[in-house]
Amino acid sequence: MTPTPTPDSSHATALSTQAEDMLQRFRAGDLRALGRLLTLVENQHAQAGAALTRLYPSAGQAYRVGLTGAPGAGKSTLVSRIAGAWAAAGRSVAVLAMDPTSPFTGGALLGDRIRFQSPQAEGGAKPVFFRSAASRGHTGGLAKTTEEMSVVLEAFGYERLLIESVGVGQVGLDIAEACDTTVVIVVPESGDDIQALKAGLLEIADILVVNKCDRPGARALMTQLHEALHYRTHAQKGAWQVEVLLTCGHTGEGLEELGAQIERHRAHLLEHVGSERIRRERLRRALLNLVREELRVAAAEAFAAGRLPDGRALEPLLDQVLGGQSDPFAVARDTVRRLFAQGDT
Amino acid sequence: MTPTPTPDSSHATALSTQAEDMLQRFRAGDLRALGRLLTLVENQHAQAGAALTRLYPSAGQAYRVGLTGAPGAGKSTLVSRIAGAWAAAGRSVAVLAMDPTSPFTGGALLGDRIRFQSPQAEGGAKPVFFRSAASRGHTGGLAKTTEEMSVVLEAFGYERLLIESVGVGQVGLDIAEACDTTVVIVVPESGDDIQALKAGLLEIADILVVNKCDRPGARALMTQLHEALHYRTHAQKGAWQVEVLLTCGHTGEGLEELGAQIERHRAHLLEHVGSERIRRERLRRALLNLVREELRVAAAEAFAAGRLPDGRALEPLLDQVLGGQSDPFAVARDTVRRLFAQGDT
Repeated sequence: MTPTPTPDSSHATALSTQAEDMLQRFRAGDLRALGRLLTLVENQHAQAGAALTRLYPSAGQAYRVGLTGAPGAGKSTLVSRIAGAWAAAGRSVAVLAMDPTSPFTGGALLGDRIRFQSPQAEGGAKPVFFRSAASRGHTGGLAKTTEEMSVVLEAFGYERLLIESVGVGQVGLDIAEACDTTVVIVVPESGDDIQALKAGLLEIADILVVNKCDRPGARALMTQLHEALHYRTHAQKGAWQVEVLLTCGHTGEGLEELGAQIERHRAHLLEHVGSERIRRERLRRALLNLVREELRVAAAEAFAAGRLPDGRALEPLLDQVLGGQSDPFAVARDTVRRLFAQGDT
Repeated sequence: MTPTPTPDSSHATALSTQAEDMLQRFRAGDLRALGRLLTLVENQHAQAGAALTRLYPSAGQAYRVGLTGAPGAGKSTLVSRIAGAWAAAGRSVAVLAMDPTSPFTGGALLGDRIRFQSPQAEGGAKPVFFRSAASRGHTGGLAKTTEEMSVVLEAFGYERLLIESVGVGQVGLDIAEACDTTVVIVVPESGDDIQALKAGLLEIADILVVNKCDRPGARALMTQLHEALHYRTHAQKGAWQVEVLLTCGHTGEGLEELGAQIERHRAHLLEHVGSERIRRERLRRALLNLVREELRVAAAEAFAAGRLPDGRALEPLLDQVLGGQSDPFAVARDTVRRLFAQGDT
């Protein structure tokens, strides 16, 4: 049925001398080489795939924590605080702030935003590496870019990654899939659209945080969240219990407890899932996202070349649909069936 | 290179007696049959594909206007007003409010929201059909569901569709691709995250609306938007000029001008693009989105069955990656290359 798999080394060797040099400096711990490699990956440079293939064996050892929440929830302050606390405890920490912006400008309009104040390295604290990155807008792209940049940061040797993104629909899910622990941040406010956005986020939370807890409505929101969580707590024994924490990013209230809860979730995963299985399942999710993104891109390329993915010419099929002899739903089903049936044999 | 295409009639005949009956009542103008057919499509019922294939020849004649904007921008009020004005002018209007909510609950937490007050049918005004629908979370799903439900509404005979959705990243783009005219709504407020969300929306706007224009900062926002638009106005001659309008949904201020601007954009498209080309390009975009969604689903199904899309067994490949003999980026590229190379021949 399925052929015996063979190791896949395609694209693995094609690195330019310049990129080889960059990789060498990267391995020597050069932060500028790290930055340039991240840019290479972010911009989907032709050398990025080969570089990632080279780096991958050194990656996968970091613990990844995702922070996501509605716009204006105070994510960057919390991220900065958590990263600072980890650094103060002697851990090497990298922060990746993903910006799901325009598919056209690639975030150009935001180019002059400076989001992070790097926490002062005081006492024995290591400096935290901060990087913000724009995805190319579509969500598949976000999952791929997040995974790729995380691999680069892990290969550089960071023990902890903190990945931040606006959590809206698929974007939050992408972050959750890339991470081991997902913290969802909400704030007391009104608006049913905002409620709608929150609903999707509840599902991905390992830890729920009501931030800006000095605002009116914080306790009421906490109650609402507990009620909403109740629906998903028919869980099996030994399952993780999602807690709702109150924090105030600016005063620091509740941040110590948030840090402790992240450690508890990590310990829970290690005990109940185990580090090998954690890594395998994270890889499985990442691979599915990467495959989907490659399929997405390949489908667009086929269309741009005037073909369906299965190789049939596009324009005559459009004529048929417009002439009433076919319909787009049947054409889409048929092209994927043809493609996957070929792959199945 | 590419085989001669043949009309595609797969899946076209398999309708149950019950579904046939529903279709017959639908064609007789039964609103309950319309509602049930929309639910069939929304829930991805097994009969949905066949039903859509049957309905498609009657669709494609409506003019589609998309309304999108950040959470809390006042979209539903504007939608209600525009729909009411069209109805008062004797047009048959359907409103589709798309909810990009949780991939897990499918919006169950929001089940009790009643968003719309149907405008009173006064004088000769026809009643407006309102429908809100949850997508299954992932954005490809939103594009597919929007297209499918729009086709059902068009086949029922509505002349105008008004499609509303929270406009965040890919979601706004999906709506824009499904529509002929896209109205983007923003409101004066603060927060750089919110700015980030807006950036993506500017690119898809045919008409920009600053709503809640009685708030402080409305004029300043208008100026900012004009500046941002300036970047994309190196456009060719005869290109549509995006205008920024001020509205206040609750008082009705600026709504007449918004209605007029929508008609102007429609006339512009008909003059400069032509109705046949409009339909063909909309079909091309819809088909690409449908193909991508089918690919996305098929990839997940393959993974769930323990295979890569090209048929290779998944677990041994995961072993290889975890053992350092391969990496997920190379595996993803390779599986898509295998798949599409087969399709290419």
